[in-house]
Amino acid sequence: MSVILGIDPGLTRCGFGVVESRPGRRVALVDVGVIRSDPAADIAVRVHRISHEVERLIRRHRPRAVSVERVFAQQNLPSVMGVAHIIGAVMHLAGEAEIPLVLHTPSEVKAAVTGSGRADKSQVQHMVARLLGIDHVDGPPDAADALAVAICESFKPTASDTKAVAPAGETAAQRQWRLGRERGQANSKRTAGDAAKTGQWKMRRG
Amino acid sequence: MSVILGIDPGLTRCGFGVVESRPGRRVALVDVGVIRSDPAADIAVRVHRISHEVERLIRRHRPRAVSVERVFAQQNLPSVMGVAHIIGAVMHLAGEAEIPLVLHTPSEVKAAVTGSGRADKSQVQHMVARLLGIDHVDGPPDAADALAVAICESFKPTASDTKAVAPAGETAAQRQWRLGRERGQANSKRTAGDAAKTGQWKMRRG
Repeated sequence: MSVILGIDPGLTRCGFGVVESRPGRRVALVDVGVIRSDPAADIAVRVHRISHEVERLIRRHRPRAVSVERVFAQQNLPSVMGVAHIIGAVMHLAGEAEIPLVLHTPSEVKAAVTGSGRADKSQVQHMVARLLGIDHVDGPPDAADALAVAICESFKPTASDTKAVAPAGETAAQRQWRLGRERGQANSKRTAGDAAKTGQWKMRRG
Repeated sequence: MSVILGIDPGLTRCGFGVVESRPGRRVALVDVGVIRSDPAADIAVRVHRISHEVERLIRRHRPRAVSVERVFAQQNLPSVMGVAHIIGAVMHLAGEAEIPLVLHTPSEVKAAVTGSGRADKSQVQHMVARLLGIDHVDGPPDAADALAVAICESFKPTASDTKAVAPAGETAAQRQWRLGRERGQANSKRTAGDAAKTGQWKMRRG
């Protein structure tokens, strides 16, 4: 069983979607929802309100990857900064849980789910429901968007599809994450306990 | 004793400075340094490399506040996003530790330390060392900048200076943080355990 947690990061509404990957590009719905924060509250409190709930989701579902929609800074800047804070908090949580965090652009997500990188919101929502075999996704669009980014990661070639490229049995994202991590470790003062935890994560994988 | 952790957030070099506030706008050096991450590593790994060390600093020093230099998005955008990720991760850590996180603009920091919001880097570094009663701050400027943002927070009027405004004995930042937090809690499904932890923080304060 291979579970993926998708996050559509936002400060007022942060969507989350958990899917289980099955062989043959099939996915099943595990959990979905939206975490909200009060726009009148202090920004640090809002980020923590959301990250605290994401931490509980990671603990509950133990995903093999956290898939997050990448944000670009063209839009409204204060809002982008808030979204970037949420992504940073989730990067910390994924790192602590020894789970790779993968960013996907909106067009990657649309292409994975609908076949077209230019699909509109309603096409994405329709295809997310269809792929999961449900009528529709309840709640605000952030929930369906989070499922879409989880499905996007789950449709990436897995270890068995790419044996020639990743003989160790990792996905490309896991490999990139491991190499980055090992590179980081060379410079840092990690303990033997930390290294053992990394090993544990490798054993749990797949 | 009132300890403040200052952070000059950065992805390649993140400065940290810990100071102890003493009566009469005096400060003493507790800890200072720079956390580095490998520019060739994956961004999520880099953010976690830094946030993991910040978490250890919070556990070691148990500051009453985390003071962070606010970043603006005018500059190089990818670099601002990286800095915003670090700030978000630190917001999560401060929230988990029940410590208020306060943002200060660069000009607030300069004004607090040198008396002028337009002071240059070398004036700030000179005054930081002088205030702490040391010859100079070792290492890259990020270390001195982190001490400056910690000193800026420690120079804010404290509970006893502002009794009329904050009769509960909080600093303005603590009050803002508590109100924001209480507002957030009204909407959230926090447990009794969480509420008890908040109470504990209030008892530990001051």
